[in-house]
Amino acid sequence: MMNDLIKLIDENLDKFLPIEYPEELFKSMRYTVLLEGKRLRPVLCLEICRCLGGKIEDALPTACAIEMLHAQTLIHDDLPCMDNDDFRRGKPSNHKVFGEATAVLAGDALISYAAQVILRNSKNLPADVLLQLLDDFCTAAGARGVIAGQVVDIEAEGHPEKHCAEKLDFIHEHKTGDLFKLAIVSGARIAGGSCEQIEDAKKFARDFGLAFQIADDILDVVSDFETMGKTLGKDAQSGKLTYVTMYGLDNAKCKLSCLLDSCDVIINKYNSEILREIVKGIRKRVGI
Amino acid sequence: MMNDLIKLIDENLDKFLPIEYPEELFKSMRYTVLLEGKRLRPVLCLEICRCLGGKIEDALPTACAIEMLHAQTLIHDDLPCMDNDDFRRGKPSNHKVFGEATAVLAGDALISYAAQVILRNSKNLPADVLLQLLDDFCTAAGARGVIAGQVVDIEAEGHPEKHCAEKLDFIHEHKTGDLFKLAIVSGARIAGGSCEQIEDAKKFARDFGLAFQIADDILDVVSDFETMGKTLGKDAQSGKLTYVTMYGLDNAKCKLSCLLDSCDVIINKYNSEILREIVKGIRKRVGI
Repeated sequence: MMNDLIKLIDENLDKFLPIEYPEELFKSMRYTVLLEGKRLRPVLCLEICRCLGGKIEDALPTACAIEMLHAQTLIHDDLPCMDNDDFRRGKPSNHKVFGEATAVLAGDALISYAAQVILRNSKNLPADVLLQLLDDFCTAAGARGVIAGQVVDIEAEGHPEKHCAEKLDFIHEHKTGDLFKLAIVSGARIAGGSCEQIEDAKKFARDFGLAFQIADDILDVVSDFETMGKTLGKDAQSGKLTYVTMYGLDNAKCKLSCLLDSCDVIINKYNSEILREIVKGIRKRVGI
Repeated sequence: MMNDLIKLIDENLDKFLPIEYPEELFKSMRYTVLLEGKRLRPVLCLEICRCLGGKIEDALPTACAIEMLHAQTLIHDDLPCMDNDDFRRGKPSNHKVFGEATAVLAGDALISYAAQVILRNSKNLPADVLLQLLDDFCTAAGARGVIAGQVVDIEAEGHPEKHCAEKLDFIHEHKTGDLFKLAIVSGARIAGGSCEQIEDAKKFARDFGLAFQIADDILDVVSDFETMGKTLGKDAQSGKLTYVTMYGLDNAKCKLSCLLDSCDVIINKYNSEILREIVKGIRKRVGI
């Protein structure tokens, strides 16, 4: 059932992003968007929408747009002037294939392209819901969202004297959390969720986003390239501020376990097998 | 009167983009947005709106958003992996002041920030006009707009064997033309312009955008750093495809003159002193 959703998302990503002129630009955009992946954000968006009584078709454009936005952050994160990473999901990163200039432009293009996918394919949603989705999208994509997290992350790197718990929280909330929040809350909005349901979704998104990032921090220490498909062990090496460098591996695992328990409480309300599977998958990979 | 508009735009750019946390990011965004400039795109947006009977206040958010988007293109164009330009409007370019990583992120952030300025400050426009403005904005900002032009421009550079008139038209239409078109057509839409008025605006935008780019191509050959505030003479040096390299200086001047005559026809309809002043300014700088 999880695989059915992933297949549906992959088909729609392909459909929403056909090759146009200039081909090289669209190929570069498609390259990272269509890299095989877990599609966690769009899956969450669709599944929350379904759990709250919405139609999956109504959420598909937004779910795909969020995955495109996610791809944008990956392309720019991997650039030589940022994390300088040559691999992503086990494949050469975008700028290694298309060159830096095209990678910068493909990332730029994905931001407005993704917003337009929502705009043009959500005409059956009430105008106020559509405008709210776009506003949420802009917030998550921008200077008050993932980019804020990324900037503080870069500032903290190699400056352990500036590391503190508040900064770590800020990085996690925005750099990773905001796209999960966008996916989950958008799903609830598209389903026409009540205020209470939107608040539940926000709480679930906060816990899940933080859990995901802590798991990522742990896996950077304990996993290998083959499993993760990207260069690992870089966090400690480069003096990055992570949950593990701040609190140690055992405390990180303990915090992660608590957060996932908290996710399970809301998942039981939703009664969603797919969400249970996702949380179980995180526990398994981290070994808790 | 032109200066009053510029002052109004500068005040509103400052107002719409206050410094928030993380400060370095917002400082970088503001640095290029607030660089002293002619504010041609927002001026056109406001003035067309006024000419068609709209309120200038209604167009201010969109006019400022378009200037922010313009700043985004400048920041990324100047990057070492793109045009590698150390100066912009006579000042060090964004990445020279804030570093490449922040410059990439500030550019990224401006795209969604600008869209949100429109979204959050245009509530008194009808929802269908607002959604159309956002759709136009996304088209101009993205893979079917300025970025398409930029990619083809980069592809053509240093490959004179691939230069052709169609490619030059495409670059000019999108790389420069699309933001002028966005500014002018948005002004007409915000004023509630009729279909005929929107079509007039599109024709004016096409002619004006092309005229502006040809003037820029000419000035790269005949002007100096002090007047233009950026590195000049680079087009021929780097084998760039421009109107001058394709048709020669005299033909470029002749074409420019024709286009400006054509602009004047529509400007007479609008009966706008400000638009007349702008066109006269271009003639004067190029010496035709």
